[in-house]
Amino acid sequence: MRGLWLEDKAIRLRDDLPIPAPPAGEALVRVTVAGICNTDLELVRGYYPFSGVPGHEFVGRVEAAPGAEEWQGRRVVGEINASCGGCAACAAGRRTHCERRTVLGIVNRGGAFAEYLTLPVANLHEVPDGVPDDEAVFTEPLAAALEIQEQVRVGPRDTVVVVGDGKLGNLVAQSLALTGCALTVIGRHPAKLGLLSERGIATGPPQSVQPGRADVAVECTGNPEGFELARTAVRPRGTIVLKSTYAGKASLDISRIVVDEVTLVGSRCGPFAPALRLLAERRVAVRPLVQGRFPLADGVAAFAEAARPGVLKVLVDAGAAAPA
Amino acid sequence: MRGLWLEDKAIRLRDDLPIPAPPAGEALVRVTVAGICNTDLELVRGYYPFSGVPGHEFVGRVEAAPGAEEWQGRRVVGEINASCGGCAACAAGRRTHCERRTVLGIVNRGGAFAEYLTLPVANLHEVPDGVPDDEAVFTEPLAAALEIQEQVRVGPRDTVVVVGDGKLGNLVAQSLALTGCALTVIGRHPAKLGLLSERGIATGPPQSVQPGRADVAVECTGNPEGFELARTAVRPRGTIVLKSTYAGKASLDISRIVVDEVTLVGSRCGPFAPALRLLAERRVAVRPLVQGRFPLADGVAAFAEAARPGVLKVLVDAGAAAPA
Repeated sequence: MRGLWLEDKAIRLRDDLPIPAPPAGEALVRVTVAGICNTDLELVRGYYPFSGVPGHEFVGRVEAAPGAEEWQGRRVVGEINASCGGCAACAAGRRTHCERRTVLGIVNRGGAFAEYLTLPVANLHEVPDGVPDDEAVFTEPLAAALEIQEQVRVGPRDTVVVVGDGKLGNLVAQSLALTGCALTVIGRHPAKLGLLSERGIATGPPQSVQPGRADVAVECTGNPEGFELARTAVRPRGTIVLKSTYAGKASLDISRIVVDEVTLVGSRCGPFAPALRLLAERRVAVRPLVQGRFPLADGVAAFAEAARPGVLKVLVDAGAAAPA
Repeated sequence: MRGLWLEDKAIRLRDDLPIPAPPAGEALVRVTVAGICNTDLELVRGYYPFSGVPGHEFVGRVEAAPGAEEWQGRRVVGEINASCGGCAACAAGRRTHCERRTVLGIVNRGGAFAEYLTLPVANLHEVPDGVPDDEAVFTEPLAAALEIQEQVRVGPRDTVVVVGDGKLGNLVAQSLALTGCALTVIGRHPAKLGLLSERGIATGPPQSVQPGRADVAVECTGNPEGFELARTAVRPRGTIVLKSTYAGKASLDISRIVVDEVTLVGSRCGPFAPALRLLAERRVAVRPLVQGRFPLADGVAAFAEAARPGVLKVLVDAGAAAPA
């Protein structure tokens, strides 16, 4: 099959990849559309040791599901962590932290920038009819945004600052806006901030941050300046949510964290079911985030476009290029 | 009056200090015993900008309390943060984070290494008769240890690792042991660890840390190696409590915090009432921590002794040296 192949910090198109064979309990999914995430760009930069087909944001159709034939033909999205079910983390119900997990297109499992992928049937979620492919492909990042509310209680009494106006910051802001909190998004890009103010969300430049006033600050930039802004914004005994991974280590003034009794919460993958429901209810707008789309055959160009500063979501159409 | 005076990273004995006059709502306290804390040593090293009489761990007797005469003559300990009552933090009930606070012997308020100090009457707690001065003087650091349980739920189902076998680590460990959690204290000093194993608390050297198994890890060393040990010990979605301030910044691998969804909680001053009760009930042993005592006249030598590696608590007797 055709797919993008990552090896030694370089990505290239291959037409000689074997169609993966689903082991017991897994489904073969024909990919329709896949989205490029910052994590994919970081994989190419070599921040994580992964060789293979990257890609973990997708929508597709189940081609085969041995032993679970009722899934065949369904349009699906899929949770990206495949867990063993037997380790201490799985036994404790923390399946996304399984000690032996594989992660779609990130850890020991081929991903979505190809014609086919496999995932455990247990990871699949059927896409409601009213959600088109180009919106369903945002289920995974929207779920990651919703993880914040699994970890931190946010409500109308809370003042919340989101630092970062990129793809993730946008989805985080839209999902937090649903809580009725007093929300401000801090960013440097008027066009990106404009997407949020169009939806009635307050925005401002970095210098507009009011020190020590936010109950919750969410860091979505992945750079130390963003962390420092979140640190400045949060009040004593407030919470900083860390949504972005960083290249290398960040320098942190731990004494300020201790004296102000601030809580830092690392936040990663989240719940798919409410993400799909919110998309179906049209309560989160994802279409304005799409700023490019390429056929799988031009996947290398798609990655180059996604890496260009200021570009939001780039989609890769795998379905269009699929062989009969 | 006599007192220790800190200025320009040097501490010296003075006999020419004025006895502080309590403003409305405050009491004049004659200090009996004061304890040297690591924060005091850090003040001398210049980590914080403070000039004046240091010292915030004390027991004393109320000499005068204008408008609150019922306090006169009582033996007391005192909460160290004096709050304004009017700022946003006070209004929200976070009085220890008052934006205009003074802090006994730390921020804009003369401290306990002197014959007298003043504190708001609202900060005072009477010491129960059964608690001798040498134990009551540990109320403040024991309260700081108890703050952990104000912030993080710890119970018999939890595996907890305390990193650090010093004064603070000892009190943190003893207070957490009361929860029935599965507790291990990690340290490098057999004699200090021995104080804990005598009380039935499991201990071990740094290399005994089991990676990724602790629900909660408490960092009590104030150095980056201690943080790294806590980070190694904690499981995904576990909690690291930061009890110690650090000199300068620490370098932190934020990606690990995000991927493992770890929570970091800064923790400072805690509740006095339960600390006094636990001392009265003899459920925490503090006497073994006392490894030196000096009259106030030898306060400079007391600081030198407290700064010597391996020394636990050094007490300063202010009462003995007080003039008639």
